[in-house]
Amino acid sequence: MNLKEIEGLQKRKNREETGCFFLEGLRAVKEAVSSKAEITQLVVTEDFCNSDEWNEFRNTYSSAFGKDAELILLKIGTKNFAKLSDTVTPQGIGAVVKTQTYTLDDIPQGGERFGVLVCENLQDPGNMGTIIRTADAAGFAAVVCSKDTVDIYNSKVLRSTVGSMFRFPIIQTVFTGEELAGEMKKRGYTVAAAHPRGGKSLYNANFKRNTAVAIGNEAGGITEELLNACDEIVTIPMPGGTESLNASVAAALMMYEVRRKGEN
Amino acid sequence: MNLKEIEGLQKRKNREETGCFFLEGLRAVKEAVSSKAEITQLVVTEDFCNSDEWNEFRNTYSSAFGKDAELILLKIGTKNFAKLSDTVTPQGIGAVVKTQTYTLDDIPQGGERFGVLVCENLQDPGNMGTIIRTADAAGFAAVVCSKDTVDIYNSKVLRSTVGSMFRFPIIQTVFTGEELAGEMKKRGYTVAAAHPRGGKSLYNANFKRNTAVAIGNEAGGITEELLNACDEIVTIPMPGGTESLNASVAAALMMYEVRRKGEN
Repeated sequence: MNLKEIEGLQKRKNREETGCFFLEGLRAVKEAVSSKAEITQLVVTEDFCNSDEWNEFRNTYSSAFGKDAELILLKIGTKNFAKLSDTVTPQGIGAVVKTQTYTLDDIPQGGERFGVLVCENLQDPGNMGTIIRTADAAGFAAVVCSKDTVDIYNSKVLRSTVGSMFRFPIIQTVFTGEELAGEMKKRGYTVAAAHPRGGKSLYNANFKRNTAVAIGNEAGGITEELLNACDEIVTIPMPGGTESLNASVAAALMMYEVRRKGEN
Repeated sequence: MNLKEIEGLQKRKNREETGCFFLEGLRAVKEAVSSKAEITQLVVTEDFCNSDEWNEFRNTYSSAFGKDAELILLKIGTKNFAKLSDTVTPQGIGAVVKTQTYTLDDIPQGGERFGVLVCENLQDPGNMGTIIRTADAAGFAAVVCSKDTVDIYNSKVLRSTVGSMFRFPIIQTVFTGEELAGEMKKRGYTVAAAHPRGGKSLYNANFKRNTAVAIGNEAGGITEELLNACDEIVTIPMPGGTESLNASVAAALMMYEVRRKGEN
């Protein structure tokens, strides 16, 4: 891809057409290399090529890509790099990476990872990224997204995931939240919705390993349809009297509770 | 204040000089009114004055402010309102509110709220806002900030707190994280740091009601000095193998654990 085409990857449409996304930052790129993500181009600024970080990274990178290492390397100026970046002070390294297409049948079963997070129409990319990072940390088996959820290859999502993206399946689907509940049940999961009011207290929730936790949209919460399709409604206690929690905080508390109870 | 002066409140310096901040959005303003925060000006667009939301809000507002209701009302055009706002589609309502100055001696003791969150040099306003909202939800008694923590009256912090700001003391101090640990100990608190490695597992942490949870900066974590000053180091299990959690997620898991154990 040329610079113009890489810049085009900022649009979801172009990412979907090419099956590629642009990943920015040294830490994220390192994670992509070590996770054996399919990198088609490594983009660096001339400035970055003079840095210690580059020298350090270059060895790992060269041994991972062998003779292709030079071929896929694209050196550009700082000004051009800024066009690809949405950060204020870009580090000067990024990569064009192939998107991975998972289906619900790719959810790992019976391994050390357990629990699935179902995201219904989440819109905030920072929240989405944090949720993916937390699901990875908590050892969840997969994150599943309804059709109206923010694109996981959005640069802000990628930035907040801090590399977790490559370590377990994040599954984008054409299903609504309600349909996803049905799909998860078919696969033997108990679907538990986090809802601000009226559910069983989180502390008393009887989570098993095969729990699918459903989290709703930041503003509207979980849809009525999905709520009705869930096996259990769980409420995180809010003794302070607030109306709700941030979606990524609610997701974290639910997922860690599944982990805690599933381990015993 | 005139429009120019209100616009100036976007800068921390001006907020500190005037002792006022600008709070945007209907939900936040409602929360300020019902929490009896000191509102010196209510700013609305002419468009907003024609909305159902305004008619609904107007009654509450008029009875709260009595004859001052008209006096403090500032009607401005949509374009001028946009200058005050940092959202893409402003609702058209905001308020100039007096900042509240709390000290460590204002932390409520012995009530239904317990636990204190100590923020050391947190920089991301979205994280900070989410942390305040979660601390409120978990029924914490106060949030305490080291001197190099982001200003809590930053508009992005305010937006993420969703009104929690007015319900319990958020205390900005001139202390470093290490000094804050000392201050909390003097007041009878056990200080527990959340650290990604090497601490006691969160599940086994023996939290009492008078626990002060310390959370560090997003990039650098807790300083060595604060770590050394803490009574206990706690690690949130990350079976998925990530290096760390987002600061607001780590804070949420720690605070809810204090709540859970403190209640029993």
